[in-house]
Amino acid sequence: MAKKNITFSDIAQYTGFSKTTISRYFNNPDSLTLENQQKIADALTALDYKENKVARILANGKTEFVGILIPNLYLHYYSQVLNQILSTYETYGYKFLVFVCNDKEETERQYIRELLAYQIEGMIVLSHTISSEELASYDIPIVTIEREDRYTCSVNTDNYMGGLQAASLLYKNGCDILIHVNADISPEVPAYGRIQGFQDICQEHGIPHELILTHLGSSYAEASGHILRIFEALAAKYEGKRKGVFMPNDTHANVLLNLLVRKYGTFPDDYRLVGFDNSPISSEAIIPTSTVGQQIDTLAREAMELLVLQMNERKKRRPVPLEQPIHKIIPPVLIRRETTR
Amino acid sequence: MAKKNITFSDIAQYTGFSKTTISRYFNNPDSLTLENQQKIADALTALDYKENKVARILANGKTEFVGILIPNLYLHYYSQVLNQILSTYETYGYKFLVFVCNDKEETERQYIRELLAYQIEGMIVLSHTISSEELASYDIPIVTIEREDRYTCSVNTDNYMGGLQAASLLYKNGCDILIHVNADISPEVPAYGRIQGFQDICQEHGIPHELILTHLGSSYAEASGHILRIFEALAAKYEGKRKGVFMPNDTHANVLLNLLVRKYGTFPDDYRLVGFDNSPISSEAIIPTSTVGQQIDTLAREAMELLVLQMNERKKRRPVPLEQPIHKIIPPVLIRRETTR
Repeated sequence: MAKKNITFSDIAQYTGFSKTTISRYFNNPDSLTLENQQKIADALTALDYKENKVARILANGKTEFVGILIPNLYLHYYSQVLNQILSTYETYGYKFLVFVCNDKEETERQYIRELLAYQIEGMIVLSHTISSEELASYDIPIVTIEREDRYTCSVNTDNYMGGLQAASLLYKNGCDILIHVNADISPEVPAYGRIQGFQDICQEHGIPHELILTHLGSSYAEASGHILRIFEALAAKYEGKRKGVFMPNDTHANVLLNLLVRKYGTFPDDYRLVGFDNSPISSEAIIPTSTVGQQIDTLAREAMELLVLQMNERKKRRPVPLEQPIHKIIPPVLIRRETTR
Repeated sequence: MAKKNITFSDIAQYTGFSKTTISRYFNNPDSLTLENQQKIADALTALDYKENKVARILANGKTEFVGILIPNLYLHYYSQVLNQILSTYETYGYKFLVFVCNDKEETERQYIRELLAYQIEGMIVLSHTISSEELASYDIPIVTIEREDRYTCSVNTDNYMGGLQAASLLYKNGCDILIHVNADISPEVPAYGRIQGFQDICQEHGIPHELILTHLGSSYAEASGHILRIFEALAAKYEGKRKGVFMPNDTHANVLLNLLVRKYGTFPDDYRLVGFDNSPISSEAIIPTSTVGQQIDTLAREAMELLVLQMNERKKRRPVPLEQPIHKIIPPVLIRRETTR
């Protein structure tokens, strides 16, 4: 602990290189021959050199830090996106400062201020408490994922395509009535596309359909109660008809599935069911459930690429800001399991 | 962007306070009256002051950064622990650099070296690729969770107590034979206590029992195949007897539950089932499943307290290192649902 810090001068003296050469080793190693890189690397080991990156940051302003703001880690979708983003460390070397916002807008704002004070290079934002207009005003590279994104670069699943896929599959299953359950979301939120895709297919083919747009609650118990009431109403209203239900996510699809299987001992033939996300619960459920899968690995990789693009631009001598935010769309993948034929 | 940075002198001049007072506002605000704190806060807004924390770190060596090393975010247990640790930001103000190691030992070691170069203040380690002896050699405050911990401070669930609770519940359910499925883990790993607790109860009460210690595989499909074979063997070997099965976690308990319900149309009376963790799947399964719940909120809070204790000690003028690593034990909570009576 009490050991004197090794400086560039010490390394220069030890190796016989100039201080400029040592500096180049750290900031632009490719400008040295492999042989000279090895000589310096050996010297660092011999001298037990410990790099002080904080001093480097102060010198060149590059922290290699990226902030990630995420609503929660309870929903499997978020933890999987986070997992994939963190795994890009091996590719890009960026280290991630992660914040879980739990809908606390002021805490999130305070956290962002702190990140800016630490001179982070960019942010990936999945939480939806702060508007894209405010995020853009912070004037650092940002990519948002599956949230309102008018003023920020973003990567989203093609939710409209997902709605089309789900409704088409249910239609091809010979359903008499198609039902889509979802929250009453704003058209500004990407997930709204699911409702629109579902509706467009139904209208195009003249399929009888019903939209049930209601907040299902934020806990499993709350959602279970709501879905039980929806199930009872549908069973009474469409008795004898084959009901094709498109649920907003796999967790809620599983609630409906369990209600059906507990009531009938098996998955009844007058129902078809499609979820969204391809969460583990969709394959681990009592009846493996059809779902619209999000390509989370692609989504995370594209988000990071879009962020790196912006961060690299900032490092140029004359950075050219983007004229318009870039919005990337990732196609979903329909996964057919046992709740459709 | 081209705006001149505001310095302490500027703030002092604007408010009429001394530079020392301004410095105290940032480093020890409670030493000022609320009124004076407000005056300075107003001045910061008026001057559009942006704190440069990197400069502060270089001055006082306090980064307020903590590293978290986690094996993966696929298992709900890990994402919940991470969620709880990240939520302590509001309490302690520490920012977390998160790394998912995915069993890549060398990448993890490289990441730790980077964190040390950034002068992080401490680490919380859940991954198990690097020995506690090596972790301790890095000479920064560390707390490990649910992994080998001979040389590091740690917080673990009382796994032995969990094994006792599960076996006792199955015994009280009138089971003729008790079965515990688990990996063949080393006695150095905390989870080994589950096997021991289960065995001790069985031996104490002379209950017939069987340990099935085998690696169930690292994917759901792989585990499903293994558990199907275990289920078929048990059904044949103990026909007509009531089988009390203690599974190593809720995901694997759910696989067995689904096999049973798909075969018999309901949860059969000659089975009882207990999982471990109280993951969402245990309550969202087709039959809500009894489980030994880990108190993840307590676990995360105690881990952070133990880390803060060590980090604060380092900030003293003459820090006194711990003579022995501290190991904290959190009791589990038995949760009875419909797979036991």
